[in-house]
Parts: sequence; structure tokens; C-alpha cells
Amino acid sequence: MRDLLHEEAETLNYVICRARETAELYGYREVITPVVEPYELLSAKSGEEIRARMFTFKDLGDRTVALRPEFTASIARLATTTLKNEPKPIRTFSVGSVYRYDEPQRGRYREFWQSDFEVIGSNRPEADAEIILLTNNLMKAAGLRNYAFKIGHIGVIRGILSQENVGDKIQNAILQRMDKKEYDEAFKLLKSEKCRTILQGLVELKSSKPFETAEKMKAHVKGFDEAAAAADNLLDILKLVTESGCEIETVEPGFGRGLEYYTGMIFEVYIPELDIALGGGGRYDKLIEVFGGEQTPAVGVAHGLDRIALAMQMQKTEQQSEQKKKVVVIPVKEELKSEALKIAQMLREAEIPAELEVMGRKMAKALEDADRRKVDYAVIVGERELKEGAVVVRDLVKREQTVVEIGRLAEKIKG
Amino acid sequence: MRDLLHEEAETLNYVICRARETAELYGYREVITPVVEPYELLSAKSGEEIRARMFTFKDLGDRTVALRPEFTASIARLATTTLKNEPKPIRTFSVGSVYRYDEPQRGRYREFWQSDFEVIGSNRPEADAEIILLTNNLMKAAGLRNYAFKIGHIGVIRGILSQENVGDKIQNAILQRMDKKEYDEAFKLLKSEKCRTILQGLVELKSSKPFETAEKMKAHVKGFDEAAAAADNLLDILKLVTESGCEIETVEPGFGRGLEYYTGMIFEVYIPELDIALGGGGRYDKLIEVFGGEQTPAVGVAHGLDRIALAMQMQKTEQQSEQKKKVVVIPVKEELKSEALKIAQMLREAEIPAELEVMGRKMAKALEDADRRKVDYAVIVGERELKEGAVVVRDLVKREQTVVEIGRLAEKIKG
Repeated sequence: MRDLLHEEAETLNYVICRARETAELYGYREVITPVVEPYELLSAKSGEEIRARMFTFKDLGDRTVALRPEFTASIARLATTTLKNEPKPIRTFSVGSVYRYDEPQRGRYREFWQSDFEVIGSNRPEADAEIILLTNNLMKAAGLRNYAFKIGHIGVIRGILSQENVGDKIQNAILQRMDKKEYDEAFKLLKSEKCRTILQGLVELKSSKPFETAEKMKAHVKGFDEAAAAADNLLDILKLVTESGCEIETVEPGFGRGLEYYTGMIFEVYIPELDIALGGGGRYDKLIEVFGGEQTPAVGVAHGLDRIALAMQMQKTEQQSEQKKKVVVIPVKEELKSEALKIAQMLREAEIPAELEVMGRKMAKALEDADRRKVDYAVIVGERELKEGAVVVRDLVKREQTVVEIGRLAEKIKG
Repeated sequence: MRDLLHEEAETLNYVICRARETAELYGYREVITPVVEPYELLSAKSGEEIRARMFTFKDLGDRTVALRPEFTASIARLATTTLKNEPKPIRTFSVGSVYRYDEPQRGRYREFWQSDFEVIGSNRPEADAEIILLTNNLMKAAGLRNYAFKIGHIGVIRGILSQENVGDKIQNAILQRMDKKEYDEAFKLLKSEKCRTILQGLVELKSSKPFETAEKMKAHVKGFDEAAAAADNLLDILKLVTESGCEIETVEPGFGRGLEYYTGMIFEVYIPELDIALGGGGRYDKLIEVFGGEQTPAVGVAHGLDRIALAMQMQKTEQQSEQKKKVVVIPVKEELKSEALKIAQMLREAEIPAELEVMGRKMAKALEDADRRKVDYAVIVGERELKEGAVVVRDLVKREQTVVEIGRLAEKIKG
């Protein structure tokens, strides 16, 4: 885990703000769930790998709990409890830190930040499309360029395997290996030669033309009814997203994701400069019933906010935020500190960021320090000017100073 | 721990925004430190009570770690490492969740939110005053009324005890009991009759007149040099704060706080409706050297953000945020969903929050649902109007509808 200082913290907050704006634009309402949840909740359907990397421990009440490795399980819990009787669809937005005990590397830390969007209650491709489109919105809002979406469909793969009577456990193991592109390892887990051929053929359909790939997938799984319906669903989603102005770079037939709960469309988004996804998600129509709810279709996405911040840094994107003028208020002598403090307070009330000199330094030292920190103005509080209801304002950029009436100080600095 | 839904989450975020604005106004820069830190760091100087209530566990690397019960230890760590060579003063702002295994009750949860402000490097009363004033700013910005500051000085108490040769451990135990107003229990820990009399006399100086109390404290500890200097310091701070327009309700001579690291001024802020503090802090001039830094004076405050949110609810304060018009886009039939999605996208690009109907419901049902959720406009996408480049806009408040050209839709809704 690491500290994020100053600019890094500001960039992460900038991304969080963009995510929150996206939530507002798309009608997702915020929910805040705890960082610590029962281990049982977080581990159900999360997949072997994440399970092994969770921060798990016993609390003082002897309950086995863990730090959340992601948000979806908590939101599914809400959907079966507090939000159970809410009319569907339920659109939720969450943002916060999540935890996985991975080997730290660039863009991958043990504590990281996600924004999470879920639509609960709709099984329609419009909902899948919406989740991709809002991700596109966030990427754009963060100022990223050349990002590319990769899309696949767990339903196609599971459809083949189920029809060939491959059990859930082996399906999960296969998908986990496919997630890591260990296709040979994945195929080895299959006993049936026919099944292996179909699956291998599917993976090899990948091409640079997304619609063509999706059409080929549909043809390839002919006779596997569930898989064929899934391929149709993928085509529907692809059309909706593309027609709404979001290009999909790749349809990847052999695409898996680490989490066990996916049942339908899955996707990820990348930039060329980084080999880890900036966000990803998909449909999970069976997770909510695992937690005791009714069967409820759902689709969602998690965005790696610190990764997006890293991507912004790599692409040198500009953050559009208004820079307020910064002011430091310095009394010329100890006895005037109270006057200086009052003037600082007055500026703050006028929404001007003002720092007070609290080190009791001599004027030259204090000005030097203000220069170093790129402060715009120094307000110098001296006895002579005070008597006339004024202070000296020193423009630290232009290096000139003027005497300004206290009543007109805020105006002078703003203007 | 609990979930914060919708309005509750929005109110907490509102308070977080006000805290961040306060940080900007007062020149505090944000740092983000991990939720999980070494147990040793978090437990040093935190005090017996907090130590016993920490969420402590071993991570997968067999390190004893804990969930932070507060921010100050992490900031002190930064001050001795990454920020070691930064010119002083260092002003930091942090916001996030902290953890204590307390018995849950109104306003007190095992996961709660704090904003934390620290000034590192200044031993002057201006710095203490600044910390109180920015707390005042946050209370005002949150819209709270009738809040009251209580202030004390650990230096006065420790000054007496040190001169009477009471060891640190017993001093801590005494302060912990004083924090709970168990004064008799506290005095019992003192062997010297003289010391007991002085301390008891000090506690009893409390009155409704803050300056008078502070002056009496100064007189009471005459002959105890350190305690007298501390009382002088308290008077200085009191003057600075009061002159800057922030009233202090109470000077409490026997005021202790749960954390062991305080050395000087301490304060808390309350509203009449709640018997728990909304925020509190103080000076800790010896904590940074505990973590291997040079002796560095510092003063800080933590605000209980979910408590402030609760206080806002209790006082029914108004949140000043612009309410954007909400729109739902409904296709009259399945085949038009792609057109509806495009129109929703167009609205979002014009910064109008737009939800798409993703349940495939019939018009009447979808409108009923929009009504229930207090949506402002329904944009109905029908074949006939589409042919003429238009849609039907239904004002759900006024209950009237008009046909609007798609090109003028955003303008119509905004206007």
C-alpha cells in the first residue's frame, strides 16, 4: 500500500469527481458500503484467485471478516436486503478503496480505488450497453485518448461447456485459465475431444473486425442453443454500443475474467501505454440468488481509478479545474498576528484561499517560502498601512507591490 | 458497520466536499494514506482504549497490521519519511474512513468518516487558532447552528503532574479518566495530597466565562512554571480565535482527550442535540519524534463527517446544491431502443442527467415508475415523430406534453 501525496491525491480526486458526474448523468445513485464485510459474502463466487488474495481476519467479536476485494458482492447483498423491495431497475454507484494481496507493480497495488456502477433487474442488452457507454463517458471525461474496448461473452463459453455436461467447478477453472490466456492449460481440463475442438475453434475466431468476429462466433456455436443465444446477445449489445458512438476495438471469443460470477457479456478497457485494464465488468445474472434473493439479472462495471489517474499522467492529459489565486498573509511583526489572522479570515470568507504565516518568520524568509510554493500574492500587514485601513499587496508573479484598502482587498485579488 | 444509501450517502459527500473546500481555503494539501498500517505505528501513543479497540490482524506476509483508528499517526509517519525535507509548515488534509471496535450507538459506528487537518512545524498559537477556525468554517459550511467549542490545555495538567514527579504512565491513566469525567477515579491515582488538591482545584475552576476561567487557571498554577506557560498559551489562543470571530463557549480546565499524544491545547465542538463531539483535536509536540523524526511541534483536528451529516439531519439544514433536471427516455417499442439510447446519449453530452428505460416496460408502466421517482421529463421516442426528427416531451410535473425537434431537445429541457 502506498501514500498518495499532493498532485497524486488531487488527480485521484479529479477522477473520483468525473466518476460521480458520470453517475449523475446516467442516473446511478450513490451507496456507501463498509470496507469490512463477512468473509463468506465476499468469497462466494469471487473466484479462487481473489479468494486467496483477500485480507481475511477475525474481528474482536470472533467473526471471520475480510477487506472487500471489489464492490459487487456488497451491492448484491444490498439488493437482497435493504433494497429488496425497490422497484427495478436499481442503478447504484459506489466509490472507494478495495484490497487485494497482489505483488505490487506499476498500476497494481494492495490498496486501490474503484468506482463501481451496477444496474440490477434488467436482462436487456440496453443495460449492458449502458454500462459500456458510461465507462466510455468516464474515459472521455478523464481526458484519455486511444483507449480501446475489448468485449466477450461468458455465456457463449459456458453455453458450450454446459451442453457438453462440463460441471460448474471445471467451467470456473477453465475460465480462470482463459482469463490468463493460458488456453492450452484450459483445454487440458476438458475430457471430451469434441468440446475441446469447439472451444479451441471459438478462441481462434478472434480477428480485427469486431462485428465479423461476433457473426462468426454465432455461426461457430450453431447447435449449441444457449451459446447461440449468447452470441446473438453479444451482437445486440455490440450494435447498440457502436450506434451510440462508442467504438469497440475487439471482440474476443476466448475472453474470460477472474470473477466467477459472470454469466453474460464481459468487457475491459485499455490504453496502449498500459498492459492492465483501466476498467472492466459484465453481466452476472445468478449472483443475487446466491445471497438468498430471487433470481435477478444484473450487469455492472468497476473502474480502476488510480489506474485511470496513472493513465492520465502517462498521456499527460490536462485537468480542467479552475485555479484559484493563492494568498499568504504575513504580519510585519509579532504584535500584528491577530490583525493578520483577521485579514486571512476575511479573504477566506470571500472564497480566496489564504494561508497565514504561522512560523513567526522574518518577512524576507516568509516571502522566499511563498515564492517557492508558487503563491500568487503576499498580503503584508504593517502598522503604518493598518492605521489607514490598508495593507501592502505584493504580486509575487509580477514582482510589484501596491497599498490596498482592506475593504477592497478581496476584489483586488480576485480581479 | 453500516450502509449509507442515497440521501445519506449524498449528505456525507456533501460534508466531504465542504471539508475539501475548507482545506483549499486554508491552504491544506490533500494526502491519501492507507487504511491498513503497521500495528506498531497506529498503537504508539494512541492510548490504551483505542489500542484495545483497533481491528488488528496478520496480513498474508505475516505482518501485524491494523485498520487505522484515526489519521494522525499516518500523517506523523509521513512527516518523518516522505515529507521529512519539506519546508515547514506542512499543512495536510486527509479524508476517509477510520475504524474502532466500539459498541455501535447513534452517531458512533465501527466504520466512520473523518476529515483530518494537521499543521506540522509551528509551535505558535496562530497555528492552534487556525485549526479551531477552520473547524468553525466547516461547521458553518455544513449549515450547522448553535454549535459550541470547548477548549482545554493538556500542558496545564501535565505541567502540574510533571513538576510533582508523576510518571508518564500515570499521567496518561489520569488523563484517560479525566476524558471520561471520572475525576475521582483520576485523583485516586495520585499519591501526593498536594498534587491532588491542585488538580482538583483546577478542575473546579470551570465557569461559564471562558476568559475568566483561563485567567483563573493561570493564577491557580502559579509556581508551576510549565503549567503557567501552558495557561498563558491557552489565553493567547483564546484571544486569537475570539478576535477572529469564532466564539469559544467553554474553557474546561479538567478537559482530557482519549489520545495519549496531546501535549498542548485540546478542543472539541458540539451541537446541543447530540452528546458526542462533531470534531476535536489539539497540539501534539512530541509525537513526530516517537516515529524517529526530529522534535517537531504540530497541531491538528479530526472532524467526524458522518456525525456532522447526522447533525445536519437533526437540525434539518439545507444543502445548497444545484438540482439538475432529470429525464427518462422511453422508446414506444422494442425496435426503437437504439434510437432512444442515442437520444439519451445526446442529452448526457449536453450535461442533462438521462436514464434510459432498460426494463422493456410498456409506456404506462414506465411513466408510472418515472413519476414515482420524481423524474422531471419523459422523452418519448415514437416512430411518427422520429420521421420528422422529433420526439414527444412530457413534463411530468405540469402533466402536459409537446412535440420537440431533437435538435432543440436539450435546450427545451434546460430552459
